[in-house]
Amino acid sequence: MKKLAILGSTGSVGVTTLDVVGRFSDRFRVTALAAGNNLELLAKQIDRFHPELVSVATLELARQLRTTLGPAEVKITHGPEGALEVATHPAAEIVMSAMVGALGLRPTLGAIQAGKDIAFANKEVLVVAGELVTRAAREHRVRLLPVDSEHNAIFQCLEGRDRATIKRIVLTASGGPFRELARDRFPSITVADALNHPTWNMGNKITIDCATMMNKGLEVIEARWLFDLEPERISVVVHPQSVIHSMVEMIDGSVIAEMAIPDMAIPVAYALAYPERLPLAHLKPLSLIECSKLTFEAPDFERFSCLRLAYEALKAGGTMPACLNAANEELVAAFLAERVRFVDIARHIETVMQRHDGRSAPTLEDSLEADSWARAAARELIAA
Amino acid sequence: MKKLAILGSTGSVGVTTLDVVGRFSDRFRVTALAAGNNLELLAKQIDRFHPELVSVATLELARQLRTTLGPAEVKITHGPEGALEVATHPAAEIVMSAMVGALGLRPTLGAIQAGKDIAFANKEVLVVAGELVTRAAREHRVRLLPVDSEHNAIFQCLEGRDRATIKRIVLTASGGPFRELARDRFPSITVADALNHPTWNMGNKITIDCATMMNKGLEVIEARWLFDLEPERISVVVHPQSVIHSMVEMIDGSVIAEMAIPDMAIPVAYALAYPERLPLAHLKPLSLIECSKLTFEAPDFERFSCLRLAYEALKAGGTMPACLNAANEELVAAFLAERVRFVDIARHIETVMQRHDGRSAPTLEDSLEADSWARAAARELIAA
Repeated sequence: MKKLAILGSTGSVGVTTLDVVGRFSDRFRVTALAAGNNLELLAKQIDRFHPELVSVATLELARQLRTTLGPAEVKITHGPEGALEVATHPAAEIVMSAMVGALGLRPTLGAIQAGKDIAFANKEVLVVAGELVTRAAREHRVRLLPVDSEHNAIFQCLEGRDRATIKRIVLTASGGPFRELARDRFPSITVADALNHPTWNMGNKITIDCATMMNKGLEVIEARWLFDLEPERISVVVHPQSVIHSMVEMIDGSVIAEMAIPDMAIPVAYALAYPERLPLAHLKPLSLIECSKLTFEAPDFERFSCLRLAYEALKAGGTMPACLNAANEELVAAFLAERVRFVDIARHIETVMQRHDGRSAPTLEDSLEADSWARAAARELIAA
Repeated sequence: MKKLAILGSTGSVGVTTLDVVGRFSDRFRVTALAAGNNLELLAKQIDRFHPELVSVATLELARQLRTTLGPAEVKITHGPEGALEVATHPAAEIVMSAMVGALGLRPTLGAIQAGKDIAFANKEVLVVAGELVTRAAREHRVRLLPVDSEHNAIFQCLEGRDRATIKRIVLTASGGPFRELARDRFPSITVADALNHPTWNMGNKITIDCATMMNKGLEVIEARWLFDLEPERISVVVHPQSVIHSMVEMIDGSVIAEMAIPDMAIPVAYALAYPERLPLAHLKPLSLIECSKLTFEAPDFERFSCLRLAYEALKAGGTMPACLNAANEELVAAFLAERVRFVDIARHIETVMQRHDGRSAPTLEDSLEADSWARAAARELIAA
């Protein structure tokens, strides 16, 4: 019986995680859940999975939840301290880190320091503090198990292979809804256009990141830390069908790829059960004959300058990726609120990066300071 | 320094093997070579690689070779006994089994019994006597390392994975030159048409087998033994670009695939160096962006009835696969000699199979007897 805490239980990965847990209730037990403000869903999750501890965003929400639940036995806590308490819950062996954005950083680091294995669905944590987090994971001998379908694919492809035989990794990108859109049409992209992702059904923040291809840029940075590879050894190829989730090129020219239907249950289950593999018999198998064809293109770093900026931030190193990520979070929120245009996202991030006085070998405080600074700088540009 | 004997050194896999050996002369030494009747090439190979022993098809060829070479130090032998001597050469640790057809059976089995690891490029050996050969390999604790690009791909995909997590394997097939040809055009297929393989440059026998898709059928049978899987767990998908060399579907829906450019150096080097992987820096890397698209279709068991017959032979078991293979060898030779039409290949094989009085759990003698019987039966049909 593997015991599990979930950071972000009411988000899309959290819901998938609990679905997998529900299907394999003989293997997993949920000990703690951290959610935001979706009390209705959280109450249902508590009712079904009986965690010992739950956390919500604020004290007010915690009080509301207590009223809703009545005298149930679950302990209720709140805020960043609450999320940290969930992440370090003594009974948990593995923590699903699926909070959206840099908010997940402190609890994830806390979980690592408490010796928990981490199922990693929050790419921003590694973008903001990849060096720190991977060093902590090594020191505390915990596993970082990637849940993002691309990184999970690479993790699967690398399984059982000698690192010295790896030439490079190739992340596939759907290209998003604007893959074929002419450059001069970009200024008129609406929020509704951008939320219309061709393959995956995800949260709004990630869907916008797919449309700008910042998502792929963040994944490149994440891959750099998860797999300890220099930026030059991480490539991106646009593959609109998203059937190949990513691949690894070996020194002899062999390329090992992982493919699957677009269902997050596969990488979630892989990370939860690792090193075992669960029979997901409820899923429709992948049929390449039904797919009929898989296509590939080079990414366009001009229309999708967020991808270029992510490589630049990774090469600059230090606090620059944290700056990129924070500016992006602010700009995506502003775009979703219709306060900036789609093309302003990359434009403003680039300005923030240019203004950033980066620091190398950052501490957690340095990274969080860069994050705060970049948010303020971005907000200023948004308001202007 | 790994010491190597090659059965079939002047064939296409043999030549590729020696090319790899030549590029990694600090890792491999050639101790023995068996060839057929290409004395000119064999003499060059002897000159370059200095084997201790070589074998040719006949005594007459052995005498000619001695005259050509002059007083060189190599020992020259001939015929089936010569091939066996090469296969069991005391200095060899690994034997590349790359003779075409069932001829390779006795020397390959001899090599296994002498405790040599086998790099397997001769699919007929496993088709004719898969049960026997794999049992001998287990008893003598030798490795069977697949060189066929499809099986090598599966071997790579399985590396480091628990067998219990495998749902099925999927062999890819180019579909050959007649993939899109209407059924009513099949009777007029010429030898030249059939030798025009779209992707791989191989020997004539295998090229015809690709055109009939018997090659894929033989590979299904080979896979059954190499990977110990029931026929129902071995699928075929037509993939004309031959970029994905084969794949493995796991119980969670993940599909692991191996891709590469169509160069036999990759699987040859993988088998030779296993468990290491050699840097084949002279090869052009695979570019999916250049490939642009990969397509997939279901195989057509009507136009390509050889594939159907192979599954039937595998399900019938016993000596039936040996019968299928022997009849096929005779019919391909007859087709190449323009003695039968393309469509007669499958038609006559089916008749031979229907007439075959199969035996279960065959000994080597049973298999060879079935082979001889089927050849005679096929020749009778060819002559009729």
